[in-house]
Amino acid sequence: MPTPPSDAAWLAAAARLAARGRPLSRPNPAVGCVIVKDGKVVGRGWTRPGGRPHAEAIALAEAGEAARGATLYVTLEPCAHRSERGPACADLIAEAALDRVVIGARDPDERTHGRGIERLGEAGIAVETMDCPAARASLAGYLTRAEHGRPHVTLKLATSLDGCIATASGESRWITGEAARAHVHSRRAMADAILVGGGTWRADAPRLDVRLPGLEARSPRRVVLSCMVEDDTVEMIAAPEEIAGLEAVQYLYVEGGAQTGAAFLAADLVDRLELYRAPVLIGGGTAALGDIGLPALAEAHGRWRLAERRQLGSDTYEAYERARIGSEQCSPA
Amino acid sequence: MPTPPSDAAWLAAAARLAARGRPLSRPNPAVGCVIVKDGKVVGRGWTRPGGRPHAEAIALAEAGEAARGATLYVTLEPCAHRSERGPACADLIAEAALDRVVIGARDPDERTHGRGIERLGEAGIAVETMDCPAARASLAGYLTRAEHGRPHVTLKLATSLDGCIATASGESRWITGEAARAHVHSRRAMADAILVGGGTWRADAPRLDVRLPGLEARSPRRVVLSCMVEDDTVEMIAAPEEIAGLEAVQYLYVEGGAQTGAAFLAADLVDRLELYRAPVLIGGGTAALGDIGLPALAEAHGRWRLAERRQLGSDTYEAYERARIGSEQCSPA
Repeated sequence: MPTPPSDAAWLAAAARLAARGRPLSRPNPAVGCVIVKDGKVVGRGWTRPGGRPHAEAIALAEAGEAARGATLYVTLEPCAHRSERGPACADLIAEAALDRVVIGARDPDERTHGRGIERLGEAGIAVETMDCPAARASLAGYLTRAEHGRPHVTLKLATSLDGCIATASGESRWITGEAARAHVHSRRAMADAILVGGGTWRADAPRLDVRLPGLEARSPRRVVLSCMVEDDTVEMIAAPEEIAGLEAVQYLYVEGGAQTGAAFLAADLVDRLELYRAPVLIGGGTAALGDIGLPALAEAHGRWRLAERRQLGSDTYEAYERARIGSEQCSPA
Repeated sequence: MPTPPSDAAWLAAAARLAARGRPLSRPNPAVGCVIVKDGKVVGRGWTRPGGRPHAEAIALAEAGEAARGATLYVTLEPCAHRSERGPACADLIAEAALDRVVIGARDPDERTHGRGIERLGEAGIAVETMDCPAARASLAGYLTRAEHGRPHVTLKLATSLDGCIATASGESRWITGEAARAHVHSRRAMADAILVGGGTWRADAPRLDVRLPGLEARSPRRVVLSCMVEDDTVEMIAAPEEIAGLEAVQYLYVEGGAQTGAAFLAADLVDRLELYRAPVLIGGGTAALGDIGLPALAEAHGRWRLAERRQLGSDTYEAYERARIGSEQCSPA
C-alpha cells in the first residue's frame, strides 16, 4: 500500500486550489481548502470573486455529512469574525464536527489572528498550524500587504541569452516567442495591477492587457511610474515606494523597462523575478537593468533562489523568489 | 524482454567513449568504438594520446575471437591507409571477420574518404553509414577543421541573471560559484587551446590553466587576441579569422571578454555557447557581449539550439549549439 499523503502534501493541494481564487478574491486573500476523510477528498473550496464565499464554506457545503470526523486542510487560519456576508468559518467548522484542522499560515488580520484557532479549540477540534511555504506562497499578496504594507511585486524581464531587452537600434519585438508571450498574458491575468515606466509607456505604448481567449476581462489596472504621462486610462506613481498606496492591489506585475526594474530593485521592492530568455544573442543592445545601486559583488549573492523553470517553445521561463532565511520545508509552526 | 538497443544507441555509446580520447588524440580525431555480439559488448576502444592506437584496434584486441560474426560500431569511418604506426583499421576489421560495421560519420580525410568503406565491402562485411548527430558532435573539432579549415570554437560566458560579466566598477570575482568554476576547468581540459582578448589578459591576468587535481598537466595552450601583449608564454593572433592558423588545434575555448566574444560572433566563428548563470542581479554592469553586428532582431532567431542544461550548485550551466538544418535524429546517411 502506498504511503498516505502527508499533512504537508494536503496543504500543498489546498495551495494549488487557492491559485484559482487569484486575483479576483481581492481585497480578500485567495484561500484554498480540502477536507479529507479516510484518505479521500470529500470537499474542496477556494475563495470566490469578491472574497465570498470563503474556501472553507464551499468545501464544507460540498462535504456535507461526510465532514463529520474528517480533517480540514486550509492555507490560512479560518476567520473568526461574523459579517453580514456570512458566518465565521471557525463556527462553520465547529458545527460540522470535524476532528482536526491543519492550517498552512496564521492570519495576520487583527480580527482573526489566533482567534480562529482559539474558537476551534474551544469546540474540541484538534488544530495544528504549520509553517507551509506552499501555503505562504499562495498567500504572498495578502501576507506582503499585511506584513509590509505594500503589494507583492513580481518583476518580469524578457531577454536574449546575453541579457538584452532590445537591440542597439531599439528593436524589441519580438525577442521571445509566442508561447512565452502567451505565458506573460496568463501572468498578467493573475495580477491586480501592471506597472511600466514612463519611458516604456511613451516609447512602446504597450497595451498591457490580457489577450487570451476568455480572459480579456481579466486585464488588470495599469500603473505608470512617471509624473508626466497624460492618459486617463492609467494611474501614476512618482516613486516605487508609492505602490503602498495602490488600493486593493495585492499582486503588482512590473514589466520594465530597464530603469523601472532597476528602481524597484534599488528600493528592495521586488519579491519575485520572472525571466523569459530566448535562445538568441543580440550583443551591444539595451541591458535588462539599469543601476540597482549594488555596492559590491559579494552583496549580490544569496538574494535569489530558483523556484520554477520550464520551457516555453524554444524559450526558457525561470522564476526566482527572494531568498528567505530558514527552511523551505513545511514544518510545525 | 526489453527491446535491444538500436544502432543509434550503440553509436551514441561509442560517441561517449570517444570523449575519453579528447583532446589528447590530437592531431588525430578522438574516435570511439564498441563491438557487440548477441546483444553484449565484447570490445570497447577510443583513440589514445597522440592518435594511436586507433579506437577500432583497441576494441578488436579486447574482443579477440569474440569479434567473429559481431557488429562493430564506430563514430568515424575506419581508416584505409597503412602507416608505419600501425595497420589500417579497415584491414584489421576484415581480418577479424566481423559481420557488420555501422559508421557514425564519413571521414572527410582524403586518404580515407569512402575508401575505408570500400575496403570493408570488398571483404564481404555489411557496412552501414548513418548520419549520427552524437557521433558528429563527438568529432566536432576534427570535422570543423576538415570542413571549414579552422578549429571548433566554444564561447564561454559567466554572467549574472541580467547578463553582466562584471559590476560597473569592474568586479567580476566571483559571479559564479565553486562548482561552476570547477566545471570551467574541466572544459578547459577538453580544449586544445584557450583564447582571451588583450583587454582581459591585461586587466585580469588570468592563469587560464586547469586547476583540477590530477589534470594540471592538461592545461591547454594559451592564445591572446591582440597585437600588443608581451608575454612569451602565449601565442597571439590579430583577428578571429587567424584561428585557422593555430596548428593542431581542433578545439578552441574562448573565454572573453565581451569584445572578444563579440568579435568571434560577428565573424560567425562560434560553434557552441557555454553559459554559466549565477542567481544574482548586478544592474548597470559590463554587458556579456559587445556589438556583434546584428542587422535586425529577426536575424538573431533560429541560430542557437539548447543542447544541455544542468545545475552546478546554485548556478545554471547551459550549452547552445549552432542550429543545423535537418534532423537531430540519427538516420541512414
